[in-house]
Amino acid sequence: MAEHLHTIRVRYSESDQMGVAHHASYIPWLEEARIEWLRAHNRSYRQLESEGIFMPVIELQVRYRRSLRFDDVATLTTTATATGPTRICFATRLTHGDSLCAEAEVTVAAVDKAGKPQRIPADLAALMATTAPVPG
Amino acid sequence: MAEHLHTIRVRYSESDQMGVAHHASYIPWLEEARIEWLRAHNRSYRQLESEGIFMPVIELQVRYRRSLRFDDVATLTTTATATGPTRICFATRLTHGDSLCAEAEVTVAAVDKAGKPQRIPADLAALMATTAPVPG
Amino acid sequence: MAEHLHTIRVRYSESDQMGVAHHASYIPWLEEARIEWLRAHNRSYRQLESEGIFMPVIELQVRYRRSLRFDDVATLTTTATATGPTRICFATRLTHGDSLCAEAEVTVAAVDKAGKPQRIPADLAALMATTAPVPG
Amino acid sequence: MAEHLHTIRVRYSESDQMGVAHHASYIPWLEEARIEWLRAHNRSYRQLESEGIFMPVIELQVRYRRSLRFDDVATLTTTATATGPTRICFATRLTHGDSLCAEAEVTVAAVDKAGKPQRIPADLAALMATTAPVPG
Repeated sequence: MAEHLHTIRVRYSESDQMGVAHHASYIPWLEEARIEWLRAHNRSYRQLESEGIFMPVIELQVRYRRSLRFDDVATLTTTATATGPTRICFATRLTHGDSLCAEAEVTVAAVDKAGKPQRIPADLAALMATTAPVPG
Repeated sequence: MAEHLHTIRVRYSESDQMGVAHHASYIPWLEEARIEWLRAHNRSYRQLESEGIFMPVIELQVRYRRSLRFDDVATLTTTATATGPTRICFATRLTHGDSLCAEAEVTVAAVDKAGKPQRIPADLAALMATTAPVPG
Repeated sequence: MAEHLHTIRVRYSESDQMGVAHHASYIPWLEEARIEWLRAHNRSYRQLESEGIFMPVIELQVRYRRSLRFDDVATLTTTATATGPTRICFATRLTHGDSLCAEAEVTVAAVDKAGKPQRIPADLAALMATTAPVPG
Repeated sequence: MAEHLHTIRVRYSESDQMGVAHHASYIPWLEEARIEWLRAHNRSYRQLESEGIFMPVIELQVRYRRSLRFDDVATLTTTATATGPTRICFATRLTHGDSLCAEAEVTVAAVDKAGKPQRIPADLAALMATTAPVPG
């Protein structure tokens, strides 16, 4: 549901002396992929912030599988799941050609400017999978 | 065992428009903390690379607890565990005053220049905790 | 002669606590613009490096005119001039809509892997304006 | 007058595939050196911002002389000159051992939150050299 594809090209400044994309470089790509996921679903994150909804990252997990190199074009395939009334988990697979290069899960919390948790806007939540309640 | 403390000061360039340290900024700090852990144990990572031992990150997990702001000084407390003959997991707690700001685990693999797994040098492994075998 | 247009979108991670794109963020964009200038002229900088030609930056000048904000799309218009047998000056104007946001000149030196100056490949030099010799 | 020394150690994430510190990495170091110049003169830039004085960069010039490598410790020697009632030019020499690695001039403008030029606080201006008026 609501899978979005975004591509990036590895910048020279994102390489390191091992000759590959430095592992920290992936984090802004993942953020870009989340923002583009929102845009593809007709929500602008800039607009959300101007409406008083901020989405700081509260948890980040990345598993690096294969290196990317400068100038490689990678595809980030992202899905979003509401994991609570104020939390979204974005899962991204990063591929280069047929190779899986990295898998990531990034959880953001919806908060107001003061940092107080806010419900995810209903129209946005409606676009997402939800964590199935454990059957009782 | 072999806990190391390292401090960083949040750079202005590491802040974002939420007015806090951007979550991606923590990743180079964690790397700096690992390198300083090695130095505190008489190993230079630069020297390791020149001897043909590279330590790319293969897994990264960060839980963000409290924001840091520009100019804050944070302490990174790092321990290392050999989680296999070619893998090290560095666990870092990032604090500011009495506040826990983030917790992270970063796993690196020891490889040669071609990316082939290499045993962690014995003297280095001897400094680390090892994952206890599950009693049978 | 040989003007190339490249667009970038300001990443959230490139913003700072003033609420604008941090001035350091422009430097990788300028590098991206130079690499795309080369690609538009059928030269891959990755390929150049694999042939033993490296182009480190030796001088950088940026004049910031108007701020850019997160999510803004900016256009980088780049021209290249051979300013000597081993040097290229890339001039870039960065605009957002009708606004001039920044002007930059970046000089790179062509060198081999050991850092020894190398002539700019003739086919590449032929694409560039050259600094007119002072009439005698 | 009022020269300040600050040291940095090149982070691994600041290296690139040429095996040296990427040229963009220097820009946050220069910013750190300006902020430490202020602190050494009993002014906190964080405090200045909270008082409504912001200092965006309006011009940047760097000449790169010798490469720095990962793990190198470099010294940034910075002086400040008031080049107008609302502008400061920070000049920084970056050295590694006896080698001059880079020279930079960074001009900042003092502005309020809305971007309107503000006079440099008098006590701060008093610490700086001023551009000598051209004798008439």
